[in-house]
Amino acid sequence: MANYFDIVRHVENYSASLNDIFHALADPTRRSVIARLGSGAASIKELAEPFGLGLPSFLKHIKVLESSGLIASEKVGRVRTCKLRRGNLTAAEKWFDKQRAAWESRYKNLDNLLTTLKGEESES
Amino acid sequence: MANYFDIVRHVENYSASLNDIFHALADPTRRSVIARLGSGAASIKELAEPFGLGLPSFLKHIKVLESSGLIASEKVGRVRTCKLRRGNLTAAEKWFDKQRAAWESRYKNLDNLLTTLKGEESES
Repeated sequence: MANYFDIVRHVENYSASLNDIFHALADPTRRSVIARLGSGAASIKELAEPFGLGLPSFLKHIKVLESSGLIASEKVGRVRTCKLRRGNLTAAEKWFDKQRAAWESRYKNLDNLLTTLKGEESES
Repeated sequence: MANYFDIVRHVENYSASLNDIFHALADPTRRSVIARLGSGAASIKELAEPFGLGLPSFLKHIKVLESSGLIASEKVGRVRTCKLRRGNLTAAEKWFDKQRAAWESRYKNLDNLLTTLKGEESES
């Protein structure tokens, strides 16, 4: 199936960032941080508060999020503030859009086939 | 921030499956398999073909996909066939929809604030 080989090649081209993004999202603490940052920037202290994690453990999560490109952080004085990098979240969303489009076109094709078969049936 | 605590609790409730789904998607081989199955069921042999992986390594990927709920497989005679479980892919899509909705409502609020401020300005 030539088509499938094309998919594989294409996926390999832009996979590094998607690997990092999906890996970052495979954790409930990190997803909560992303959800929180969706409503505006926040300090590390504020972000860490509800988790009952030690700061070093929490900072590991922040590091994974930052290296995936999903968030950026900046230190001003003693306060490090994080914000969402919305565009990179959109990259992952687009992967889902693509899968849905393929799925929907498959069903459209099945529909067309059924319509054709029905037509042939009523002709005979 | 009470709201953020609510998010954290909510995310913990349904996080087990999302953890598995995002973990499954954090690999280019597994994403390619999902993309291929979007156009219909396929045998393990057919799915493995473009990767140049040994069968045991490839089967590990299939196992991760299956235990995440993203695919199901069935053996008939000597052939194991895989198919997409579309509903579980949708669960992950919904997570993104939620983030986008929160983001958009944030911008709507900023817009409203700007409109209010402009109104006050022209009154003074």
